[in-house]
Amino acid sequence: MNSYAEVVRVGVAGATGYTGVELLRLLSRHPGVHVSSAMGAPGAAPRHVPALKRLWDGPVNGLDLDVLADGSDAVFLALPEHAAAELAPSLVARGKRVFDLSGAFRLRDAALRRRWYPQTPDAAPSVVYGLTERYRDSLPDSSLVACAGCYPTAAILALQPLLQASLVDLAAPIIIDAKSGVSGAGKTPTERTHFSECHGSLSAYGVFDHRHAAEIEQELGTPVTFVPHLLPIDRGILETIYVVLKPGVDAAAIGETLHAAYANSPLVRLTGSDLPEIKHVAHTNFCDIGWKVNPATRQLVLISCIDNLGKGAAGQAVQNFNVAFGFAEGLGLN
Amino acid sequence: MNSYAEVVRVGVAGATGYTGVELLRLLSRHPGVHVSSAMGAPGAAPRHVPALKRLWDGPVNGLDLDVLADGSDAVFLALPEHAAAELAPSLVARGKRVFDLSGAFRLRDAALRRRWYPQTPDAAPSVVYGLTERYRDSLPDSSLVACAGCYPTAAILALQPLLQASLVDLAAPIIIDAKSGVSGAGKTPTERTHFSECHGSLSAYGVFDHRHAAEIEQELGTPVTFVPHLLPIDRGILETIYVVLKPGVDAAAIGETLHAAYANSPLVRLTGSDLPEIKHVAHTNFCDIGWKVNPATRQLVLISCIDNLGKGAAGQAVQNFNVAFGFAEGLGLN
Amino acid sequence: MNSYAEVVRVGVAGATGYTGVELLRLLSRHPGVHVSSAMGAPGAAPRHVPALKRLWDGPVNGLDLDVLADGSDAVFLALPEHAAAELAPSLVARGKRVFDLSGAFRLRDAALRRRWYPQTPDAAPSVVYGLTERYRDSLPDSSLVACAGCYPTAAILALQPLLQASLVDLAAPIIIDAKSGVSGAGKTPTERTHFSECHGSLSAYGVFDHRHAAEIEQELGTPVTFVPHLLPIDRGILETIYVVLKPGVDAAAIGETLHAAYANSPLVRLTGSDLPEIKHVAHTNFCDIGWKVNPATRQLVLISCIDNLGKGAAGQAVQNFNVAFGFAEGLGLN
Amino acid sequence: MNSYAEVVRVGVAGATGYTGVELLRLLSRHPGVHVSSAMGAPGAAPRHVPALKRLWDGPVNGLDLDVLADGSDAVFLALPEHAAAELAPSLVARGKRVFDLSGAFRLRDAALRRRWYPQTPDAAPSVVYGLTERYRDSLPDSSLVACAGCYPTAAILALQPLLQASLVDLAAPIIIDAKSGVSGAGKTPTERTHFSECHGSLSAYGVFDHRHAAEIEQELGTPVTFVPHLLPIDRGILETIYVVLKPGVDAAAIGETLHAAYANSPLVRLTGSDLPEIKHVAHTNFCDIGWKVNPATRQLVLISCIDNLGKGAAGQAVQNFNVAFGFAEGLGLN
Repeated sequence: MNSYAEVVRVGVAGATGYTGVELLRLLSRHPGVHVSSAMGAPGAAPRHVPALKRLWDGPVNGLDLDVLADGSDAVFLALPEHAAAELAPSLVARGKRVFDLSGAFRLRDAALRRRWYPQTPDAAPSVVYGLTERYRDSLPDSSLVACAGCYPTAAILALQPLLQASLVDLAAPIIIDAKSGVSGAGKTPTERTHFSECHGSLSAYGVFDHRHAAEIEQELGTPVTFVPHLLPIDRGILETIYVVLKPGVDAAAIGETLHAAYANSPLVRLTGSDLPEIKHVAHTNFCDIGWKVNPATRQLVLISCIDNLGKGAAGQAVQNFNVAFGFAEGLGLN
Repeated sequence: MNSYAEVVRVGVAGATGYTGVELLRLLSRHPGVHVSSAMGAPGAAPRHVPALKRLWDGPVNGLDLDVLADGSDAVFLALPEHAAAELAPSLVARGKRVFDLSGAFRLRDAALRRRWYPQTPDAAPSVVYGLTERYRDSLPDSSLVACAGCYPTAAILALQPLLQASLVDLAAPIIIDAKSGVSGAGKTPTERTHFSECHGSLSAYGVFDHRHAAEIEQELGTPVTFVPHLLPIDRGILETIYVVLKPGVDAAAIGETLHAAYANSPLVRLTGSDLPEIKHVAHTNFCDIGWKVNPATRQLVLISCIDNLGKGAAGQAVQNFNVAFGFAEGLGLN
Repeated sequence: MNSYAEVVRVGVAGATGYTGVELLRLLSRHPGVHVSSAMGAPGAAPRHVPALKRLWDGPVNGLDLDVLADGSDAVFLALPEHAAAELAPSLVARGKRVFDLSGAFRLRDAALRRRWYPQTPDAAPSVVYGLTERYRDSLPDSSLVACAGCYPTAAILALQPLLQASLVDLAAPIIIDAKSGVSGAGKTPTERTHFSECHGSLSAYGVFDHRHAAEIEQELGTPVTFVPHLLPIDRGILETIYVVLKPGVDAAAIGETLHAAYANSPLVRLTGSDLPEIKHVAHTNFCDIGWKVNPATRQLVLISCIDNLGKGAAGQAVQNFNVAFGFAEGLGLN
Repeated sequence: MNSYAEVVRVGVAGATGYTGVELLRLLSRHPGVHVSSAMGAPGAAPRHVPALKRLWDGPVNGLDLDVLADGSDAVFLALPEHAAAELAPSLVARGKRVFDLSGAFRLRDAALRRRWYPQTPDAAPSVVYGLTERYRDSLPDSSLVACAGCYPTAAILALQPLLQASLVDLAAPIIIDAKSGVSGAGKTPTERTHFSECHGSLSAYGVFDHRHAAEIEQELGTPVTFVPHLLPIDRGILETIYVVLKPGVDAAAIGETLHAAYANSPLVRLTGSDLPEIKHVAHTNFCDIGWKVNPATRQLVLISCIDNLGKGAAGQAVQNFNVAFGFAEGLGLN
C-alpha cells in the first residue's frame, strides 16, 4: 500500500466545469496528492474558484500542454471529448498517467467509436476502462484510463454480476430507466437546462439515441433499452432496471451474487429490499444497489444510485487513481 | 348539450385536502355549477380556504350527510377510502349522483377489491369507472362514478388503444415506470413527504405492491409491472412505458391507432416523437402522450404525462361530471 | 360595462417568451378578445407553442409591424426595451392602443429615463403608468400604457397608501427585501439562471443598482433601499418591506388605511397578520398583502406577494386592458 | 496543538435528527475522535443510520445517561431544549465536557431565559457561548458550551465587529432579513414542512416573536429587527442585513474592520462586493460574508451565508470541540 512517502504531482485540465471543480475539491484534500496545476480553456486568464476558497486557493490557468505535462506525474482530463481525444495521446507519449473523464476512449469497438466519438484517433493508446470495481486488477499497469460514464457506472455495477452468473433470461429486454440531476448536463447554459425549463418538470431525452447505451452494452455484452430522464435536482442518478430472471432464480440468489461480487468493494453498498434513494449517495462516492423480485412473473427490479459528479465522474476518477498508484481505494473520498 | 338553463347544485366532501381545494377551484368558476356545500372532517369547525379567497369564499363545514345530500344534485367525494365506502351508497340511495375520487369502488373483481379496499361493501351500487375517454357513453346514465386513479389514468390512456388493436407482443412484460409529484401523497405530513426527505432526491416505492397496478390491469386486461417513484416536484406525473411490438408494427401504426382513439377527445394531446414533459400539463387537465419505436428491437417507449391533481383527480372528476350532466366535456377545465 | 358586443382584436408581439406565452394563455380564453396575431422575433419562421396546444393553436409569426397594426385594435408588447421603445410610438401613431410590458416608458423623469432606458425616445407619446389599482381612472383614455414592473407592483401596492396617509416616519430608511422566482429573468439561458446554479441556493443581485428602484421611488415619491434576490422557484415574488411608523400609528391604522385603499380592488387581497405566501398567489393575478407591527420599536413589516408572470406582468397587462376597454377588471383573470 | 496522542472519546445524544446525523458524519472521520456511543430517544431500539453505512456503522441506542457518561470524555447534545436542559448539568457534574446544540443555555439574562427556555434550570453550570470566532479564548477551560444558534451565527459574525468598532448609526434600525432551508426546522414532519407546502413557495414566520432575536441582541448588545423566512431548499441560510453607517464610514472601512476581525479565523471567508451565495457554503463549515455601501444614503447591506447544519449546528459544535481540546480549529471540517 502506498504510504504517501512520495506525494503524486497531479494536473487537472478542465478545472472550471462541475466535474473539474469537484476533482479539485477531492484532490486538494487527498493526503497523497499535490495539485501541481489546474487549467481551463486555452488562452483563458488565470482565475480562482470562489467555491474552493480556503480549500484550494491556486489559480486556474489557461490550458498549456507543456506546463501540464512537465509538472505532473498524473493528469486528470475533465474536458470535452474532442479536446481529450487530442491531449490524452500526447500526455501518454510523454510518460504521464492519464485519467480521462470524457467518453473519447471508452468504446473499444472501432465502428462504434467512430459513430459516437468521431474525434478519437483510431490509433489510440492502450486503454483501461475505468470502472474500478470491474477493472481493479488492470489499473496498476495502466497508462490511459477511460473513466466510466455516469449512467453506465450505475447500470453496469447493478447488472454485470447477474449477467456473468447467468441469472438473467435474455429473451426479455433489459430495460434501464435512468433519471439524472441536471449537473450531469454540464455547466454551459442551454434552453434545456435553464432553471424555469427544468424546475417542477421531468422529461425523457435521447431515447434510442444516447451514446451511453453503447458503453453499457460493451460492458454487459448484451443489448439494452436505455431511456434517460432529466430530473429537477442538481446531483444524483437513480436507475430503475427491469430484467426477467431465469426460472428458479430468486431474490436470495440475487443477493448472494451481488454480495460475492462486491465483498471487497468498499464503495458499493448493497441495500437489499430497502431500496436506495438519491439522498443517501449525494455528495458521496458510493454506489447503492437494492432489488426486489416478483416470483410470479420472474421480474427483477434493481435500483442503482450514485452521485453523478462523485462515483459518476470525479470521485470515480480519484478511485481509479488510488488503485493505479497503490493507495487505499477510498482514500480522500469520504 | 346542456345550456346551463338549470345550474347543477354540487356538494364537495373532503374539501380541505389538495384534491378537494382543486375541486372547489374548478367548480366555483364552472358556469353550470353552484357549489351548495363544502365539507371537511366530521365535527370540524367551519373554516375558509386562504388559497381560494375571492375565488370561492364559502365556508368549509364539518361533514354532515343530511346537509350534503339535501342541498345538492351531485356530490364529489374527495375522502379517504373508508369514508367514501360508507358515504357513497347512502348518497346514491338518496338519489344523488356521486363522483367518488377515492379508490373504494374502482375494482370490479370482488377478490381484488377485498384485498385492496377491504372497507368497500360487497353489495355496492352499480359503478361506472370514471375514465372519461374510455367510458364516455356510460356516464350519462351513471349514479356512482369511480373516478380513475392518477397513475392508472396516464397508463391506460397510453396503452389501452394499442392493446385493443392487438399491436403489442404480450410475451414480453409491459413495464410502467411512473414518477409522481409529492402532492399525490396527500396533505397529511409524513416522514416520506417531509420537505428535506424529498428535495434533491428520488426514490421508488410500492414495488410489486401498489393497488394502482390492479386498477391498470383491470382496464388493460393483461398483467403489468408497475414501479412508482416519488419525484421532488409538487404536481405532475410522467410515466415511461415499455412494451415490445408485434412484428411489422411501426411508429406510424402507433400514431394512427392513437389518433383514431382520441379523435374526439379534446383533453388528450398526442405529441408523437416530441416527447411530452410535465411542465406542459401541470395546472391543466390534459393528458399528453408521445412515443418512439426502435425497429431493430421492436421496443416501443411511450411517455404519458398528466397533472395528478388535474386530469389525475379533480379535473377528471369534473370532466366526468360534465359528460354525465350533458355539458361540454372540457367546460370549466381550461 | 363592456358587454362583449364588439370583440376587441388583439395583437401580441414577443409571444414566445415566458410573459408572451402567459399573455396568449390569458387572452385566448378572454371572452371579449380575439387574438388576431402573435409574433416573435423579426424574420422568425412561423411556429406553434407546445404548451398552448388546444388552448391557442395559432401560429407565432415573425414580427411585422404592418400586419401587427392592421389587424388589431390593441397591441400587447412583451419585447425587450429597445424593441418596445421603437415600436410603441409607431403603433400609437397608427391609432392602436398599446400595452407595453417592458420598462421603456415607465419612468417620467427624463434624466432617469435616459439613464435606465437609453433607447427610449425623449419625445414619447403620452403614457399612463399601468398599475391598475393606482391609475384606474386614467386607463379608459390611454393610448400607451406602460405596465408596471414586477417588483414595483408588489412594493407600490403595499406602501403607497401608507405613505399617502402620512403614516410612515421618513427619517428611517424604507427597505424592500425582494425575492423573485427565476422566470422573472426571462427565457434566455444564462449562467445565473442555469438550473444547477440556482437550485438549492439563494443570492442577492443588483444591490443599489436595479432600475426597478427608480420606478418604485417615482410612484412613492421617496427614496427606498431595494435589494432583490433570486429564489429557486419558477414563479412568484415575495417582498418583505420594513418601515418605521410615526408615533401613535398601530396595526389597526395600517389595516384601515389599506382596506380603504383597496375596497374596490378585486385583485388585491389583504391578509392582515396571517402573512401571505407565494403559493397562494402563484398562477393567479392577486396581490396578497399582510403586515405586523412591533409597538415597542414602531417597526412595521409588510409582506407583499404576487405571481411575477401574473399580476407582475401578463395578468396586470390584461387587467389594464380590461379597464381601458370597459370590461370588468378581473375578466379572464381567474 | 493536540497531536492526537490521546483520542477523545465522544458520545452523541440525539443522533437520529438531521443535526445528529451530521455530527456523526463529521466525528466519525475526525482523526482525534472515537465515537464511543450514539443515542436516540430514551427506550428506542438500536438502529443503524442508512445514510452513514460504511462511514459509521455503529448502532444508535436508546438514551441512557450512565452509558453516555461512562464511556466518553465529551458529549454532544443534539436534543430538544427540555432534554438538554435536564441532561447537561448531570453530565457536567460527572466531569464530562458538554457541547449543547440546543438553545437551552444560550441566554445569559435570567428573565429572557425564563421566557424563551422555561425548562432551563436557573442554577445552570457556567456556560461559554459557543461561537468559536468570538469566544475562542474561553473554550479551552469550558465545561458546558452552548453552541450558537444557526440564525445568530450568521448575523453575529457579520455585525459584531462593526458594532464593536462603532461604525454603525444606532439611530436607524438594524434589520436582519433571514432565509433558511427547511432542514433548520428539524426532522419531525409538520404541515409547514410538508413538501407540497414549501416547494415553489416562500413564507415569513415568527415575525417579532423568534427566540433567536434575543440571542442576537445578547451578543450584539443592541436591539435588532429579525424576520426569518422558510426557503424551498434543504440546507443553507442567507441573511440580508441592513444598517445605516455613521457619517464618513465607507466600504473600505467595513472591509478593513472585518478583515482585522477574522484574520485568524480559517472558517470565515470575506467576499467583499462579490456577494456570497448559499451554494458556496452548503455542505461546508464556512461563513461567507460580503457587503455593499450606498454612500448617498450611508446604507450598508451585508450578506452572510452558512450551512445551517454545518457552521449553523454540527460543524460549529465540532469547531468548538476542536478549540476546547487543543486541535486545529478546522480539523475534520473540510
